Order: sequence, then C-alpha cells, then structure tokens
Amino acid sequence: MRPFRIVIAAHGSLAAAMLGSAEMICGPQEDVVALGLQPDDSPESFADRMRDAMGGPGAPTLLLTDLQGGTPHNVACLVARGRSDVAIVAGVNLGIVIEAATSLESIDEDAIALLVSTGRDSIVDSTRRLVRDSS
Amino acid sequence: MRPFRIVIAAHGSLAAAMLGSAEMICGPQEDVVALGLQPDDSPESFADRMRDAMGGPGAPTLLLTDLQGGTPHNVACLVARGRSDVAIVAGVNLGIVIEAATSLESIDEDAIALLVSTGRDSIVDSTRRLVRDSS
Repeated sequence: MRPFRIVIAAHGSLAAAMLGSAEMICGPQEDVVALGLQPDDSPESFADRMRDAMGGPGAPTLLLTDLQGGTPHNVACLVARGRSDVAIVAGVNLGIVIEAATSLESIDEDAIALLVSTGRDSIVDSTRRLVRDSS
Repeated sequence: MRPFRIVIAAHGSLAAAMLGSAEMICGPQEDVVALGLQPDDSPESFADRMRDAMGGPGAPTLLLTDLQGGTPHNVACLVARGRSDVAIVAGVNLGIVIEAATSLESIDEDAIALLVSTGRDSIVDSTRRLVRDSS
C-alpha cells in the first residue's frame, strides 16, 4: 500500500476529472481524493475540506494543485504549514497523477524531485517529429 | 483574435474540466474545444470528432493532449499527419491551457517551445519553501 495519501486540489471539476481519467487508464486508486474549488466556496471552507481529506499529523499527504498562485494552491500551502509530512506539487497534469498514484514510493525530497522531473518531461512538443515524418 | 484554434483532447471528462477551470479563472474563451475520449469511443470515431473540431487545412490548430502515448495523443498525431498548420503538445495542465488560450500569438516552432517551457516551469515543488518557512 502507498504510504501516503494524495489530495488533488483544483478549480471547478478539474481534480475529479483528473482522478477519473487516471482511473480510466490505471483502474481504481485507493487513498486519492479530488477536491474542487467551486465558485461559491470561500478559501476557509475549502481549507476545511482539504484538512478533512488529508487527515491529521501522522497521515503523510501529497497535495497536487492545478496552478501555483491559484486559490487551491494557496490554500494547500496554508494548510500544510508546519507539517513536515505534507508535500505540495503545483501544475498537476495527468502524468503526475498516474506517477504519484501508481509508482511513487515516498514523499521525501528526492521522490518529489523525481515526480516534478517526470511531470516536466511529460510535457512534450510532438509537432516537429510530425514535420520530419512528412518531409 | 487568436489566429489558431485550440483543441484539448483527453481521456474521460478531463478536457472539458480543464477548459471549464480555465474559463472559471479567465472568462469565456473563443475557439477552444474540449474533446473527451469515452470508454465506448473507437479511435476512429474519436479521430472523426477531432477532425470536425479542428476544421480543415487553412484552420491552424493547436492540439493539447493529456498523455503522450495515450489514445487521445496518438489520434492527434494521426490526424495532424501531413498538416503543417497543426501543432501538438502532450502533457497539458491548466497553466498550458491558460497560456495558450490567452497569451500565445502563434503556433510556430518558437511559440510552441515557449509554451512547453512555460508548462514545464509551472510544475513546481512548493514543499521545501514551507519547510524553510517553519524552521
């Protein structure tokens, strides 16, 4: 079993859709929660829901947020303050969710650096190859 | 007006959610279409929907896909073959959608390189800063 929870926090229905798509590819995932910031949410109510999803100290959690500087990310930073068992990665894409849910073994600094690197490498310009193919 | 269309192609409801979240932040976006691959879609039917969403030659299009090697991406590569007015970027996240929809001025090689770079830079480990804050 994965030794940490994952909470995906994003605007609107993005977190739920990202989890749904990951499960469409990899099957059901345990201990992964999707939190959507709705237009009528206050940062405070969203923070409460995030704390509930994370569990208390002693429940290591990886927070994946959609956008650095956005409310879900800012709330994640606030909620994680003072907790050394919480990691936060902003800019989540489907590759990051799949990697975190199925392959990541811990949320220590090296593991998170690898996750960020994997996520960055998953953003690829596939255009040039096509131009070469057709030349 | 942006001189190209954007088609987001992803598994399940991810593309629609990503567009919805971008519009929640930036307001309504013109000429951005979300295409979701559903479990009962065949690659052929998905390709037909993608071609319809793109428009024919002379309608420059940026295809944003969720995952290199996934069906939406593979179909995008197939549909774009032989078209020099189509660019493809895999690994889409919310930052890429917002950047592409609101700031990108063309889909030439330099512009796409900048988009990829912006997307990669948007994936950030926000954990260490917090540890420093709390020390």
